[in-house]
Amino acid sequence: MNQSKINQTSKCIRFTLGQKIKQTVGRLRQKNLHRLTGRLLLSLTLILGGVPSLLPASPLPQEKMVPSSPENSREKLVEQFMDKGLRENYAFTLLKKLTALGPRLTASPQAAAAVEFMRQAMVDLGLENVHLEEVEVNRWIRGDQEKCFLISSTLGTHPLAVTALGGSVGTPPQGISAQVLEVHSFVELKNKAAEARGKIVFFNQSMDPTLLDTFRAYGQVARFRSLGASAAARVGAVAALVRSPTTANDDFPHTGMMRYQENVPRIPGLCLSTKSADFLSRALKSDPQLRVYLWTNCRNLPPTTSYNVIGQITGTEKPAEIILLGGHLDSWDLAQGAHDDGAGCVQAVEALRLIKALGLRPRRTIRAVLFMNEEFGGSGGRDYVRHPNRRQEKHLLALESDRGGFRPLYIGLRATPALWDLVKSWEPLFQKMGLIGFKKGGGGVDIAPLGAQGTILAGLIPDCQRYFDVHHSALDTIDSVNPRELELGALAMGLLAYLLAENWPE
Amino acid sequence: MNQSKINQTSKCIRFTLGQKIKQTVGRLRQKNLHRLTGRLLLSLTLILGGVPSLLPASPLPQEKMVPSSPENSREKLVEQFMDKGLRENYAFTLLKKLTALGPRLTASPQAAAAVEFMRQAMVDLGLENVHLEEVEVNRWIRGDQEKCFLISSTLGTHPLAVTALGGSVGTPPQGISAQVLEVHSFVELKNKAAEARGKIVFFNQSMDPTLLDTFRAYGQVARFRSLGASAAARVGAVAALVRSPTTANDDFPHTGMMRYQENVPRIPGLCLSTKSADFLSRALKSDPQLRVYLWTNCRNLPPTTSYNVIGQITGTEKPAEIILLGGHLDSWDLAQGAHDDGAGCVQAVEALRLIKALGLRPRRTIRAVLFMNEEFGGSGGRDYVRHPNRRQEKHLLALESDRGGFRPLYIGLRATPALWDLVKSWEPLFQKMGLIGFKKGGGGVDIAPLGAQGTILAGLIPDCQRYFDVHHSALDTIDSVNPRELELGALAMGLLAYLLAENWPE
Repeated sequence: MNQSKINQTSKCIRFTLGQKIKQTVGRLRQKNLHRLTGRLLLSLTLILGGVPSLLPASPLPQEKMVPSSPENSREKLVEQFMDKGLRENYAFTLLKKLTALGPRLTASPQAAAAVEFMRQAMVDLGLENVHLEEVEVNRWIRGDQEKCFLISSTLGTHPLAVTALGGSVGTPPQGISAQVLEVHSFVELKNKAAEARGKIVFFNQSMDPTLLDTFRAYGQVARFRSLGASAAARVGAVAALVRSPTTANDDFPHTGMMRYQENVPRIPGLCLSTKSADFLSRALKSDPQLRVYLWTNCRNLPPTTSYNVIGQITGTEKPAEIILLGGHLDSWDLAQGAHDDGAGCVQAVEALRLIKALGLRPRRTIRAVLFMNEEFGGSGGRDYVRHPNRRQEKHLLALESDRGGFRPLYIGLRATPALWDLVKSWEPLFQKMGLIGFKKGGGGVDIAPLGAQGTILAGLIPDCQRYFDVHHSALDTIDSVNPRELELGALAMGLLAYLLAENWPE
Repeated sequence: MNQSKINQTSKCIRFTLGQKIKQTVGRLRQKNLHRLTGRLLLSLTLILGGVPSLLPASPLPQEKMVPSSPENSREKLVEQFMDKGLRENYAFTLLKKLTALGPRLTASPQAAAAVEFMRQAMVDLGLENVHLEEVEVNRWIRGDQEKCFLISSTLGTHPLAVTALGGSVGTPPQGISAQVLEVHSFVELKNKAAEARGKIVFFNQSMDPTLLDTFRAYGQVARFRSLGASAAARVGAVAALVRSPTTANDDFPHTGMMRYQENVPRIPGLCLSTKSADFLSRALKSDPQLRVYLWTNCRNLPPTTSYNVIGQITGTEKPAEIILLGGHLDSWDLAQGAHDDGAGCVQAVEALRLIKALGLRPRRTIRAVLFMNEEFGGSGGRDYVRHPNRRQEKHLLALESDRGGFRPLYIGLRATPALWDLVKSWEPLFQKMGLIGFKKGGGGVDIAPLGAQGTILAGLIPDCQRYFDVHHSALDTIDSVNPRELELGALAMGLLAYLLAENWPE
């Protein structure tokens, strides 16, 4: 794309002298407005856009002072959100600092640092009611770098890229060496149960690459990761190796939580990178007798205490009615958890910062909750609902961002018909921010317990083509996040929260 | 996002035994179908979807053999495109090989390698009428790595990250050392003309970060790059330094073509990285007397010959009526030109591969044209139109992909009302592929000369938040391309080309 293309770029603004002067005068007028009347006037203009008679008289141009209709006022609001958000990119600035603390595995020292860092960030932004609430969390540590080798009398010895699954027991100190049974489904494992005894079961099912919705493809295979070890143990296997649930073909294994079923021996569970899985599968075709050697020293430790981090903008009229924006603060330990879910956390905080910075004072409370322990059992979401602080509160809607900091395309909503009609009427506003619009459905692990209480659940749905490239792997770093895409998510969350806090259908 | 989320992922397919058997049987049936009747039958099914009586009788299930309506048939077509495209990701495979040849600066040996590589790829895919057409191209070489230092008696000496602009003359052998005049517009330069003599003019205007459409923001500032040197020379400056047109804040300068105006001295033009531009601007506030030292040895050489690369699927009924898909094969020399515009080239080729591989035989010709020299004057597009081969041909529509290999959101179209109605009726098909839909407007530098002849111009419009992070810089590498996003663009191009070639409104 070269210079000649510039002329083709639609609506290219020409900075003629006349326009420049006009712009400068416009800016000066706006500045004077701020100086003369402070933030309060701006807030009133925005909140009471449809009630011009309440505004003080002013010599400034009509279109600056008195939006002619609520729609007009809301469009200006979108402009202000975008102007402030995309100019300052605070979500990314915050995420850079958060990720610099290191991986935030539940119960790790870095998770504690993240709690304190985000609490301080909320205080520094002047959010209200900033506090921590206790969460009981499991503790698991990976220990040393895992070792895994393919050993074949004909093919030689080759390292395989593996990672222990969260919650897995370690191997015996001498490791495990065994033959391998490759399967592609639980049904196939059942059918081959007789062959599994004493072997390592290798679940080698790829994510379906033909699905546009990568979350759907993930949902089809991640159960091998979570349930594979117990399924393998039930037929006498000594360990489980699972192909990483990712759309990428590379040498980065993707971890994630696994669960042991009761009354089944606890055998180690590990994920293989997709390249290593393909290599092992090809090798097995050539030498079905090959062995794999595994060594890990991960282990589970007694539960401990961590915290949900909470801050808000308290509603002026109905402070106990809450619009919640959330993400989860814990991450996996292989990287910085930039997309999963540092992104969601900083977007929630940025949404509140923008509302505050634009001088908006919503009628109902808008709250950011950074949940702890989504990755290791979801106790943060459960403990949030059970907390005594919830007694006097009514959560109208909870929106979670936990699908990565990519360009937002939809907001998913499990809405009542009245609410659905309302948000659909706002769709053009969100389209100005780049979203396609609202979609039925949505939610998140952390907010699910609120859903059980009648809170309407929602989720930010960004473009998901890249998410499983990085998800739960060493690639989930700040470098994989684009500041503008991240910010657009925060803008959508902030705008929706504000509009809902102002206009909730009674 | 953890295992519990899987249960919330909508429509998570459960692989029960029954379903598995059903799927397996279905696949076996499909395989038999292929074996029995080969590709031809599949092609007929697709092309003549609405004409079931033409199809041979078959014991296979009705829904496999005879789509019940054209809409149904088209939906199956979408599924087949997605299944094949996203499973094989050929666009990315091809792009990896293309980018491995190195930067494809017009007239460089690597550009020649790219021409031959893509020609061979088209031949290997069995495309028809594969050939090269001559293009006269300018030749410019960067020479050695540029040098640039800020020299201040109070701040010391600091390197600045710069890159010579394409087409720039070099500095004298000893370099240039001069004071700096910072401006933010051509108007400001005119107003400060008296101060410019003997200085380096520093155009320091950022891209507007608040615009959702980064191409619009680019259009506002890239003219400093293309016209800045001559504007500065006209008021007696000795060189021009331009802030890189990018949304990123980093130390990678972004190059691009500049043009000298006639009757104005030719002074060197260079781009500064955004971080270096900010650093220089701050330093100037502290020491307005500071000097900048510049050294380059880039130079322009006599024009030479290169080629457009052309291949097609010839139409069965109206072979002279052409739907053109294109990108440009040349790139800048700082990186591999993965997004700009290797992506567009491999998407065009992949679109044709998919159409062919699905056994489709369109009524009109679908042609891929990989234009040479978009970045250095656009002679590829002009020479394509002038070529004697065009005499017997009628180009109905030309679609260019030159906005990066990101997730496609729209297809832009300068359509007649009849064509617009037609493509809008297909919008649900493209939405299944993840696009928002069709948008008015669109085109590209290479196809613009066809537009002047009455060809309808169109362009693939992907998400553009990340494009100017990498555009014309050392960051435009294969690592910045996501295989699935790239492929989705190829799918949309292929589907549209096929539907148009079959259904062009007469």
